[in-house]
Amino acid sequence: MNEQTVSPRECIGESQGWHERLAGKAEALQSTPLAMWLDDGSRLCRARAEALSWRWGPLSLDASKQRLDQEALQLLVDWAESRDLHRWRKALFAGEIVNPSEGRPAWHAASRWRGESPPPSGSEAAVAEAQAQRRRMSALVEHIRAGRWQGATGRPIRHLVHIGVGGSDLGPRLVSEALAEEGDAGGIEVHFVSSMDGGQLLPLMERLDPAATLLVVASKSFTTVDTSFNLHTALAWLAASLETGEAEIRRHQLIGVSAYPERMTAFGIPEAHQLTFSEGVGGRFSLWSAIGVSLAVRIGMPAFEGLLEGAHAMDRHFLEAPSRDNLPVLSAVIGAWNSQFLGIPSHAILPYDSRLASLPAYLQQLEMESNGKSCTRDGLPVESATCPILWGEVGPNAQHAFYQLLHQGSHTVSAELLAVAHRHGSRGGRLGACLRDQQRLTLANCLAQSQLLALGDEAIPSSLQGFLSQGYRGNQPHSVLVMESLTPEALGSLLALYEHKVFVQSLLWGLNPFDQPGVELGKRLASSLYRRLGGEAVAPEEAVVDVATERWVSRLTG
Amino acid sequence: MNEQTVSPRECIGESQGWHERLAGKAEALQSTPLAMWLDDGSRLCRARAEALSWRWGPLSLDASKQRLDQEALQLLVDWAESRDLHRWRKALFAGEIVNPSEGRPAWHAASRWRGESPPPSGSEAAVAEAQAQRRRMSALVEHIRAGRWQGATGRPIRHLVHIGVGGSDLGPRLVSEALAEEGDAGGIEVHFVSSMDGGQLLPLMERLDPAATLLVVASKSFTTVDTSFNLHTALAWLAASLETGEAEIRRHQLIGVSAYPERMTAFGIPEAHQLTFSEGVGGRFSLWSAIGVSLAVRIGMPAFEGLLEGAHAMDRHFLEAPSRDNLPVLSAVIGAWNSQFLGIPSHAILPYDSRLASLPAYLQQLEMESNGKSCTRDGLPVESATCPILWGEVGPNAQHAFYQLLHQGSHTVSAELLAVAHRHGSRGGRLGACLRDQQRLTLANCLAQSQLLALGDEAIPSSLQGFLSQGYRGNQPHSVLVMESLTPEALGSLLALYEHKVFVQSLLWGLNPFDQPGVELGKRLASSLYRRLGGEAVAPEEAVVDVATERWVSRLTG
Repeated sequence: MNEQTVSPRECIGESQGWHERLAGKAEALQSTPLAMWLDDGSRLCRARAEALSWRWGPLSLDASKQRLDQEALQLLVDWAESRDLHRWRKALFAGEIVNPSEGRPAWHAASRWRGESPPPSGSEAAVAEAQAQRRRMSALVEHIRAGRWQGATGRPIRHLVHIGVGGSDLGPRLVSEALAEEGDAGGIEVHFVSSMDGGQLLPLMERLDPAATLLVVASKSFTTVDTSFNLHTALAWLAASLETGEAEIRRHQLIGVSAYPERMTAFGIPEAHQLTFSEGVGGRFSLWSAIGVSLAVRIGMPAFEGLLEGAHAMDRHFLEAPSRDNLPVLSAVIGAWNSQFLGIPSHAILPYDSRLASLPAYLQQLEMESNGKSCTRDGLPVESATCPILWGEVGPNAQHAFYQLLHQGSHTVSAELLAVAHRHGSRGGRLGACLRDQQRLTLANCLAQSQLLALGDEAIPSSLQGFLSQGYRGNQPHSVLVMESLTPEALGSLLALYEHKVFVQSLLWGLNPFDQPGVELGKRLASSLYRRLGGEAVAPEEAVVDVATERWVSRLTG
Repeated sequence: MNEQTVSPRECIGESQGWHERLAGKAEALQSTPLAMWLDDGSRLCRARAEALSWRWGPLSLDASKQRLDQEALQLLVDWAESRDLHRWRKALFAGEIVNPSEGRPAWHAASRWRGESPPPSGSEAAVAEAQAQRRRMSALVEHIRAGRWQGATGRPIRHLVHIGVGGSDLGPRLVSEALAEEGDAGGIEVHFVSSMDGGQLLPLMERLDPAATLLVVASKSFTTVDTSFNLHTALAWLAASLETGEAEIRRHQLIGVSAYPERMTAFGIPEAHQLTFSEGVGGRFSLWSAIGVSLAVRIGMPAFEGLLEGAHAMDRHFLEAPSRDNLPVLSAVIGAWNSQFLGIPSHAILPYDSRLASLPAYLQQLEMESNGKSCTRDGLPVESATCPILWGEVGPNAQHAFYQLLHQGSHTVSAELLAVAHRHGSRGGRLGACLRDQQRLTLANCLAQSQLLALGDEAIPSSLQGFLSQGYRGNQPHSVLVMESLTPEALGSLLALYEHKVFVQSLLWGLNPFDQPGVELGKRLASSLYRRLGGEAVAPEEAVVDVATERWVSRLTG
């Protein structure tokens, strides 16, 4: 859509100018110790901290411990604007083809658009379709939670096994875990199965009552091999345990979620048990769609709607707020600053709340699958670093694991520390007090580690000087992101923030964030190796032979 | 112990020579595409693949997809020998002070030494003590699994909640998960609680029968704040639910594991419910000791002994095998080659078996807490990169998440792909066949991804050329490590392999791998911030003030 306005060549020429300005700025700031910027007694430092902190809805972002000043930030924001941010953002919401390699729009924002406000021009049909599918989904969810769904033997369903992988697993699982304290499980236990080796399925098959187990198979294409193998194993288990045919199980104990209803029908899933969503919703952006059905069973429809509400509020913030106060734009340019200009290869996600334990894995997919690319949407090589390596762990646990390296190792790492300000407020008694103490301890640790990551040896209080070994490197640039409390709305806003951050970064680097060409070949190679490991011959033109692989194949089949 | 033989200065001079030779070699090999080394038609390539593959007991290591040749490997092994490997290794097993900053030996190998072979001279007392403690532990484990342990109300225990963090959590949890298919749970459900926010405890408190719940508190120091807060919450829950005093709960429903029995006694844990282990067993090396009690309840004592057996076999291999065939030495030098000489900052752990889902987290602690340092044991700065950043995920799941970046992103990453050759062999019927298909699919994916990581675009079979987008970078150096099957013995060997790898790397870099000075200051800072967040004043000499922290404190207490 953009090719008419700016040619790739012009883009690169222009981008070169920004690159030089920003690289110059980075050289100057790279060597300034963060401690110099954090002096509480200095009016300039206080003004900087104020200027590098934002509060929007349930989220507060503190970027004062980034290697940034107001001028660099302004330059970064101007750079983003120069990358045609406004036009692309409009195109995203209007359903233009923002995924040119697959010729698709990206409908994740449409899939959560709220009825009250008119959808952006061009997205009306997609919004209407998403809302219609959500009504169908809502009816199924209520039916299951009310105990009215009966399995092949007439027993009401008590267990739901969600089978999906990648985008059909990470989002729903993350949100289920994050909102377990808030949501109401409605008497249904929800389990997630993703890994192709059957290792998560096996203990469930030993433990669950097959007559009361409903499978949900979630696969946009309905052909994902991991999911398909897990599904076959699960169906074999149910059919054998209930002494019936698999067709019977497919009719009574299986919900399908896919963009291809005809494939679900061909598989024997009745139309009433099919949920669909648009091909234009990318897998890693799909938790808002019917892919979220198991999550909705877990937390209830009101919480699921709250999640969408929060994401939609972030959509509007992203669309409407000026870039200098726009959280996705700010997060994106700060990330690019660290990766591209400061040359920091990895970024740690450190949630100070165990409910967000799966956030690092979720963001690994969202960011690294979207922008882990080095070729622009126009087919030209990107000269700079793009998406960093994301990794992480629940912060307090990581303090006992890898913070040693963050504080005294040989690597500069950028990071995001996330915390939740309020929790357990309504719990009474001694137990409530204990839990609130734990929450306070967690916040204290988050702030302490942030201080230490920034200040290094300068964080040693005078009472400990001489008693404590030195060598804390400090200057590890990071943001602190605090949610007021972990409600469905706040979580929806947070995840939509990351989605739009990724989109803005794709513009900075000129990438298509909505395809994943790098995963196709591996699937093809695995398919011929699967046949070879089963003793089948594979035509020479279908395989590439290397000495290491041949050694393994002959050993494993020998 | 080593100071007498080689002075730090000499060490550095000598190390400089090796550094130059290896750096020169690295420059030459850095630019050789891996495809050139993997030609199945070339006799030289076959010889290289043979020379870079090893098989020992249940483990097979294939390093033919590392950027290495036989000459570089020999140089690396010689370098390791030049770092006084033999002397240090002997010192480790003999209980010399290999942890000089804390003045301690490292007794993890002693804690699993088998009765049949005489322990290394110097370790006899430690071995005897470990064996005595294991007998006590074994009796407790059998007592619990036999249903004879009764809670405060006389109800037999059905649930065990293991409370620990870091080394008191990661190892026992990893092994429990990995061996769940093999082990026999003996009717007791074992749960792990680590995160300081209480988020893992809360759902258990809602679900478990308090009268049938036994707590195990595992903390070497018995003062770890995360564990202590979780314990207090859990005790408050049990006391309130059972309408009794906490003292009563401590007497009847609590096992303590610590190196400090007097602290457990002071806390009200009866001597009969205390398990101890030596101060000389480091937290991240402690799963073999009484810290493993909950794990032993989960998998049974025979499996636990098998685990130790396997680890001990690896100890002997490490002690006895020539360096050129010694898996820990080889793994160590290959890792150092990637990190120090090829300049690769991060290392991905990619298990192709979902039972090993916690292996990346476990190794993050083991490697990054041990060698995430940049100051030698003699207090000199290390000039080179040391421990890389470890990260990872179950391989097949990661294929749907971040492999896009590995294949087409802008980063060189080293990796280890782990797989299990045989699984589900004994299962009959259609279900067994389904599970074996899943296993075959998983192996095929491991081999396919390994091929693609190495060959990049060269892995495109001729039938797909022109149909598939290019741009697979290839040349991502990695090892493939295959276990025959995931038995307790094989897992024990694997984990001991990593332990000794870390030890050898510490010698290469001159580090003390057994302390963690970088985690102390954060604890102190958190403790004063905890008081401040609770409204308490803190003396100026106990805190360091920075503008960002002050803003948060005033907001969170406001």
